[in-house]
Formats: sequence, C-alpha cells, structure tokens
Amino acid sequence: MTLIIHGSPLSPFTRKVTLSALEKNIEFQSRDLNPYTETERLAGLNPLKQIPIIQHNEFTLADSSAICGYFDAAYPKMQRLLPDDAKAKGAALWIEEYADTKLFKVISEGVFRPIFINQFLGKAPDLVIVDDAVRNRLPEPLSYLEAQLNVGKWFAGDQLSIADIAVYSQMVNLDHAQHLPSQENYPEIIGHYHRMQDRPVVAGLFKSEQAFLSEAIRQLSQKKPERQVLEE
Amino acid sequence: MTLIIHGSPLSPFTRKVTLSALEKNIEFQSRDLNPYTETERLAGLNPLKQIPIIQHNEFTLADSSAICGYFDAAYPKMQRLLPDDAKAKGAALWIEEYADTKLFKVISEGVFRPIFINQFLGKAPDLVIVDDAVRNRLPEPLSYLEAQLNVGKWFAGDQLSIADIAVYSQMVNLDHAQHLPSQENYPEIIGHYHRMQDRPVVAGLFKSEQAFLSEAIRQLSQKKPERQVLEE
Repeated sequence: MTLIIHGSPLSPFTRKVTLSALEKNIEFQSRDLNPYTETERLAGLNPLKQIPIIQHNEFTLADSSAICGYFDAAYPKMQRLLPDDAKAKGAALWIEEYADTKLFKVISEGVFRPIFINQFLGKAPDLVIVDDAVRNRLPEPLSYLEAQLNVGKWFAGDQLSIADIAVYSQMVNLDHAQHLPSQENYPEIIGHYHRMQDRPVVAGLFKSEQAFLSEAIRQLSQKKPERQVLEE
Repeated sequence: MTLIIHGSPLSPFTRKVTLSALEKNIEFQSRDLNPYTETERLAGLNPLKQIPIIQHNEFTLADSSAICGYFDAAYPKMQRLLPDDAKAKGAALWIEEYADTKLFKVISEGVFRPIFINQFLGKAPDLVIVDDAVRNRLPEPLSYLEAQLNVGKWFAGDQLSIADIAVYSQMVNLDHAQHLPSQENYPEIIGHYHRMQDRPVVAGLFKSEQAFLSEAIRQLSQKKPERQVLEE
C-alpha cells in the first residue's frame, strides 16, 4: 500500500497535494519530477504534462484537485479536505479553483518565474516584471481573498479545508521570493498565512523547502564560474 | 428554494451544469447571461468573469466543477455525479479536468470560436483555423479519451458520472459545428456520444440548443442587410 507523490518541492500544486497528505496523516513517499527537464517521463504519467501525479499501488492519478478528491474518498476516516456541508463544500471547491487559476497565474508569471525560473535557467531575475506584478496584478486576487475571510477563520467553515491549503500553497512562493505582502495591508490573508504556518506539518514542509531552495541556489552559484570559463 | 443557473446555452460549462441538474432531477430556472456583452453583470457574480454561476436562494457559486460538487452535497439522495468508490471518483475528477481544459481549448479555439463567435461578431468563419484544428489538434484529445473508454461503458465505472457529462458537453459543440468525427475513426468516443444522446434529458437539451442556434443565425442573417445599408 505505497503512495508515491511525483512532483517538485517548489511547485504550488505539488505542495498542495503533499500538504493534503500530511494534514490527513497519510503515509507517502515523495519522488522528484522536474517538469522542465523530465518532459518525457512526465508525459508518460500525465497527458497534460503537469505535476503532481500520484501512484497508489497500481493506480495512477494526475491533477491536484482530482488527487485531493481521491484522498478524501480513499481515506474517509482521516480529516476531510472537503467539508460535508453543501455550502461549505461548494465554497471550498470555488476558493480552491480561484487559488489554482487566478492567484497561481499572477504569482507564477509575475513573481516566481521571473525570479527563480530565470535563475535556474542561468538568467538574471527580471525585476521589472516582478515590480509590475506586486504593484498592479497582485492586489486584485489578494483583495478578493481578503474579503472572503472572517477574522481568525478558515476559508470554508470552522475547519481547515482544501481551500486553505490551496491558497496557502500559492502564497508560499511569494514568501520564498521575499514578496509576502505586509499584514498591515492584508490583515486577514496574511493572518491566515501565519495561522497555516503555526500548524506543525505546514511548518515542517516549509523548512524543507527552504533547505531545498538554498541548496539549489548554492549549486547554481557554483556552476556560474564554469559557464563563464566556457564562454570566454 | 429556487435554483437559478446563469449562463449561455452554447457554453460547454453552462451545458455541463444544466445537464448535471437535469440528470439529478433538480428543479431550476435558466437565465441567459451573455459573457461577451454582459461583462459588468458577470463580474458582479464571478471575479473570474466566467459562466455559469448559480444562485440557490441566498447562496451564489461560480465554477462548473464547484457547482457540480455542490449539487451532490446539496441533493445527496438524487443520482450522484461523483462515484463513492475512491478510484472511480479520482478517475471521474481527472476526466472532468481533462475535458474542461485540453478538450475545451482545442474545440473552443479551433472550431467553435472561428465558426460561431466569428458569425456572432459579423465576421466570416475562419475555415483555415478549423481545418487545422480538425486535422492536427483534435486527434490528440480524442485518441486519449478513446483509450480511456471500454466498449459500451461510462468513463468512471458502471454508471454515468460527471466525467461523461463533462466530455459530452464539449463534444456537442463539434456536432453543432458539423465537425463531429466519424464513428469509424473513434468508435468508443462517438459511441459514448450517441449513448449520451439516447438519454431523454440529454436529447431534450440538445434540441433546445439547436433551436437557439437556428434562431441566433436567423437573426444574424436579418441584421446583415441593415449593416450593409448603414455602411454604404
């Protein structure tokens, strides 16, 4: 009964599935799958060529939302990611979708790619794109999510749900990029972010991502001189 | 206890929600919401500016997948759109996602827009785009879905699920455009399409869409002379 999560530590959708498994206290193994370099292996697992993908014994499943729906059905006695109450369930699915599309797009295109993916490709960060995103593109989704939260609460009802995990999983990449907005400007959404990080499994995963990121950047900085030598 | 579905008859996502309500035998009213002309009203209901949106008494919900998840939770005694079995549920959510993204993109960009949206905007159909899509872009998603179906079966288990409704809802627009592929080339997926149309509620909705489309095209053909007069 082995569950394997194929993905990459800085992918918000891998993070969403990993945190869901951790919150449900499901045993699993993580396998690195880099979507930029392992394109053939990825296409064999998912025709949409996206991570994460799970393998649970003989069963393979792609798409983070489908996987989290599967987790609730396969492990019904462990904490539910989707509330039973109809309105809370609808709201959770909606916030998950909003985080996975709108919030993802702005943070990925506007902050994560121009900083980290640029670096991984040996290019300088594009701070013009980042500055534009932080000033002009991020306020819309952050303000919308801010308005959906009540003081001290979770997104869909009184308990943590997939909505909280989905939003947090995107926000982490702002934190890694040192562009997390101030709690003064967004008290609810940043309060929620810290409430998530107060959970032991969330804090543990965040620390391991920071270690991964430091190591990746250290390796990149060591590579640079070699490349410069080659180019000279 | 009134359920209102706001959307447009030729939108595959409105169709998916409408068919889900019909298959579950939920009472509802449809309200036309044209995403191209009623942009302000749409934005007030859904920050992603997409149809459909439902209003169920005081509760508003956007996103077709969230709405169908809500239907199962709000009407638990009526036919389930998502199977209870974990693998079948995971598979249903995955096929739904694949239909809503990959299949939608190819049919919408490659066939529906260049034919119908062009006409609604007073332009000639762009048959070069359509021909390229039918020859080069459609075979990939159709072959993938073909391989997921067993003879005479539904996508996720022995019963109809959201996966069948989601795939069918996209395929209908190929039929409206008279580009449904032959059963010789795609026996399973076209067999599935006809199996869907054998269901009375599906056949009924298809007829009403055909009437809507004929009327829209008739009105367009009447408008043309007026425009030409104005332009002269």
